[in-house]
Amino acid sequence: MSFYVYLSGEIHTDWRDEIARGAEAAGLDVVFTSAVTDHDASDAAGDHLGAESDGFWRDHKSSKVNAIRTRTLIEQSDLVVVRFGDKYKQWNAAYDAGYCAALGKPYVTLHDTDIVHPLKEVDSSAMAWAQTTDQVVEILNYVTRS
Amino acid sequence: MSFYVYLSGEIHTDWRDEIARGAEAAGLDVVFTSAVTDHDASDAAGDHLGAESDGFWRDHKSSKVNAIRTRTLIEQSDLVVVRFGDKYKQWNAAYDAGYCAALGKPYVTLHDTDIVHPLKEVDSSAMAWAQTTDQVVEILNYVTRS
Amino acid sequence: MSFYVYLSGEIHTDWRDEIARGAEAAGLDVVFTSAVTDHDASDAAGDHLGAESDGFWRDHKSSKVNAIRTRTLIEQSDLVVVRFGDKYKQWNAAYDAGYCAALGKPYVTLHDTDIVHPLKEVDSSAMAWAQTTDQVVEILNYVTRS
Amino acid sequence: MSFYVYLSGEIHTDWRDEIARGAEAAGLDVVFTSAVTDHDASDAAGDHLGAESDGFWRDHKSSKVNAIRTRTLIEQSDLVVVRFGDKYKQWNAAYDAGYCAALGKPYVTLHDTDIVHPLKEVDSSAMAWAQTTDQVVEILNYVTRS
Amino acid sequence: MSFYVYLSGEIHTDWRDEIARGAEAAGLDVVFTSAVTDHDASDAAGDHLGAESDGFWRDHKSSKVNAIRTRTLIEQSDLVVVRFGDKYKQWNAAYDAGYCAALGKPYVTLHDTDIVHPLKEVDSSAMAWAQTTDQVVEILNYVTRS
Amino acid sequence: MSFYVYLSGEIHTDWRDEIARGAEAAGLDVVFTSAVTDHDASDAAGDHLGAESDGFWRDHKSSKVNAIRTRTLIEQSDLVVVRFGDKYKQWNAAYDAGYCAALGKPYVTLHDTDIVHPLKEVDSSAMAWAQTTDQVVEILNYVTRS
Amino acid sequence: MSFYVYLSGEIHTDWRDEIARGAEAAGLDVVFTSAVTDHDASDAAGDHLGAESDGFWRDHKSSKVNAIRTRTLIEQSDLVVVRFGDKYKQWNAAYDAGYCAALGKPYVTLHDTDIVHPLKEVDSSAMAWAQTTDQVVEILNYVTRS
Amino acid sequence: MSFYVYLSGEIHTDWRDEIARGAEAAGLDVVFTSAVTDHDASDAAGDHLGAESDGFWRDHKSSKVNAIRTRTLIEQSDLVVVRFGDKYKQWNAAYDAGYCAALGKPYVTLHDTDIVHPLKEVDSSAMAWAQTTDQVVEILNYVTRS
Repeated sequence: MSFYVYLSGEIHTDWRDEIARGAEAAGLDVVFTSAVTDHDASDAAGDHLGAESDGFWRDHKSSKVNAIRTRTLIEQSDLVVVRFGDKYKQWNAAYDAGYCAALGKPYVTLHDTDIVHPLKEVDSSAMAWAQTTDQVVEILNYVTRS
Repeated sequence: MSFYVYLSGEIHTDWRDEIARGAEAAGLDVVFTSAVTDHDASDAAGDHLGAESDGFWRDHKSSKVNAIRTRTLIEQSDLVVVRFGDKYKQWNAAYDAGYCAALGKPYVTLHDTDIVHPLKEVDSSAMAWAQTTDQVVEILNYVTRS
Repeated sequence: MSFYVYLSGEIHTDWRDEIARGAEAAGLDVVFTSAVTDHDASDAAGDHLGAESDGFWRDHKSSKVNAIRTRTLIEQSDLVVVRFGDKYKQWNAAYDAGYCAALGKPYVTLHDTDIVHPLKEVDSSAMAWAQTTDQVVEILNYVTRS
Repeated sequence: MSFYVYLSGEIHTDWRDEIARGAEAAGLDVVFTSAVTDHDASDAAGDHLGAESDGFWRDHKSSKVNAIRTRTLIEQSDLVVVRFGDKYKQWNAAYDAGYCAALGKPYVTLHDTDIVHPLKEVDSSAMAWAQTTDQVVEILNYVTRS
Repeated sequence: MSFYVYLSGEIHTDWRDEIARGAEAAGLDVVFTSAVTDHDASDAAGDHLGAESDGFWRDHKSSKVNAIRTRTLIEQSDLVVVRFGDKYKQWNAAYDAGYCAALGKPYVTLHDTDIVHPLKEVDSSAMAWAQTTDQVVEILNYVTRS
Repeated sequence: MSFYVYLSGEIHTDWRDEIARGAEAAGLDVVFTSAVTDHDASDAAGDHLGAESDGFWRDHKSSKVNAIRTRTLIEQSDLVVVRFGDKYKQWNAAYDAGYCAALGKPYVTLHDTDIVHPLKEVDSSAMAWAQTTDQVVEILNYVTRS
Repeated sequence: MSFYVYLSGEIHTDWRDEIARGAEAAGLDVVFTSAVTDHDASDAAGDHLGAESDGFWRDHKSSKVNAIRTRTLIEQSDLVVVRFGDKYKQWNAAYDAGYCAALGKPYVTLHDTDIVHPLKEVDSSAMAWAQTTDQVVEILNYVTRS
Repeated sequence: MSFYVYLSGEIHTDWRDEIARGAEAAGLDVVFTSAVTDHDASDAAGDHLGAESDGFWRDHKSSKVNAIRTRTLIEQSDLVVVRFGDKYKQWNAAYDAGYCAALGKPYVTLHDTDIVHPLKEVDSSAMAWAQTTDQVVEILNYVTRS
């Protein structure tokens, strides 16, 4: 069986590609999934259901359409990687981590040292904290070796 | 039966007291619970288990001791109120919201209009978005009326 | 322990009171709960969270506030009685029945003979079909006898 | 993996075919399932188990045979689409929506604007409300894009 | 907290009373529950919902009304005692044992040596096999001692 | 996907083969599973783990080895057929039915009319009662039709 | 509500009493539970069900009788403390920790430094590792403070 | 479908290979999985995430990385074999057994007679106790036969 990994969080750097390239270079049988990472498309995911004048409801509709995809993928995954970058609020990433924690779904975090303190609750129920994408690939290499 | 409400999130303003006072003034049979909200005590919750030189592990230990309390209280509650203020990362609040979502535990958010967009995933699985503590009290009044 | 019964569905006749009076007359240790049955209050349950120009969103907000109450009460109940009257769509009643079925929560239906056919899916996973409130009281009398 | 979509509700128009054709035209890897949509066959699903003189029991037997099929398909699906038309009671559709809600199975509704109010409970726990089959296809297109 | 024990199975001897008297004599804080053990009342539990000409449906209705009571009591119990006597099919007792096994609810069996072989599946997931009511009381005495 | 059917109960007649042949003749995509139906092999399933002088423990060991197989197959099935013949106690069949009921796994019973009354609890949570193997094949034909 | 703590593991020192005395001295509203800690009584818990010549079956019967008590108490607890001493195999303590981990029940370990390495799996899913009973009392004091 | 067997416990003898060879010789369709059994690699599983000066935290990190692999494999297995050898504490093996017990995942133990007493809790919820790898192969042969 392939090992399924859901990549959650930051969409402004190419960390997903780095992990995918690393896994491919290592010859791992891993399938990566994620939310739609095109920011504009994601914000507009519900627009075709009818225009909204109120930003709250536009967000509401798009978030729910996105959740159809993301909840299913998280539940089907064997591991979730949650990435926190240095910009933006990224509450959706912390939300995904809490979602995993309640499901008993293993997740690892990927973030720099300077945000260790505000991420303490998120990290404390993670299976690992990685600082680089190479470390994530190494984890995948280890847990899938035959 | 009393109605149990867990108050999650921001600890720098007195929103918990406002809600408790409002509920009391309305004569509601509601019991409020929360994490330990003394910031220093919370950060030091694991210190008596042995000093740590590395901040990551100090946070790790304290977070887990706090989680003994918070997970039990969240799971015993009938409703969770998640408050986002205007400062700090507050990833623990978003984490609690995700935790509730995965459990099917109803929660409402309490935050200002200017952070609607970054909270869209958190709000989209909430049962309500309140902007004031009075609105939260009003919800409690409504859902517990006989 | 008291026996908890959630009364779901039609709000235009006094069937809830009939059952409660019958249970009291029989001296049963039963606690009855239900949604807020004041139709106008129920439709307005979310209004205090901010006015909506679009009826869909007004309904959306009020339904969710109502669900905070109803889901908790359904999950705490030992039995749900779902009443279908002769007017209106009453999709919320059928929705509650499906909700109970998926939870494995026992429910009985209360409706006249002329709607047996459209209710066949709802009735087929019910524990009983009653046609009168007296029959419901009789069920409660039987299942709680010592 | 293919994406599994269960199509619930109205059987008097060809909305299922419209969605299937739309998905095929868009080249989506989606598998559609549903109850047996031949009305007479569905009503007679239990007849071979022995004739019933009482309509209630005939319905009862057929509904349970149908449920063997439908519950399994709903539980195996990634998304359920619940269609409400302009005729009949359609309590089975609302029942399926409640069933999904309790399971945490994502569903979207498909119905016209004029029945927004009676469907408010059903819509409030849906992931989306679509008014046309094209909108449903668009949702499928979005959530399955690679 | 009191310890809740559901007494399932045979209704033709006074084994329930023997256990209750033994527990009382030993001063145990145990609450005993069971199905309605009046055979005629149990068979007639659904009769007030309308007469049936077909015995199968009469049994069907009564069994479901009884199940409202029994499932709730089984799920609320800390231990189930399942008694098999020397007469009748007693499939309901074996059914209750299977129900407990799937729930992870501990149960003990109470039966004579001569039916050990046909009860092997039932006994193999039981927590104990008792041959006398005194042994059941002794188990209760042990598991509840402070 | 194939439809998985577990065949539980009586092992003294060839009802399993009749159903399998009927399903094959109808071209159904159904996979049948069951316990080991060689009676002597089943009773001896634990013998290779060491001889027992006490019949109770021999049965105990064999039943548990059998349960490794049967529980897994029941949990993987889409439908369970439980057959009661006219001989023996067959408590294992009733046990399997109760096990299914607690899991929410759909099952149908297969038995003659003369044992309707002692099977009333077992039948009341079944999805159907069949009297002939042809009727079971017909159910399979119906629930798997495309 | 009182806070329920199950004390698992070593029975040869008075660590349970130390914790209980510490909690009492601190005025905590904590209820402590445990297995029967009288070693001989525990080993003999099944003896009254009939003598066994084979030690394996004597242990088997007693262990299951003990499990009626221990599983119920573990599942009802808010926190489990698992104590590993310096003698004996104590596989039951590690078993209880694994049991808690799978249930999502929070537990803390209590053991000396010299067995950190063989306990690494047990400790890694614990909420805390304490070395003294005072530290356990301190944790209880913290998580129950109002 | 292949039958999945997770092999837990002792890593100092070649019992895993013996079982695998036996299953292959018998032509069984069984897939074996296990933790990484290279002791040094397992202890170092978290080292690439950053060096730790404290042995507790090194173990902590490695154990969690290992758990990503082992929990997933245990949950995907149809049967777990837990081996206890004559050396070391082997608390991880007992932990895995408790984890299986709470999940309702069937497991068998493999150990010599001289440790029957300290393993009584572990054995009492096992489906079988084997003393040799041949016996394990025989169990696999039996439960997978067609």
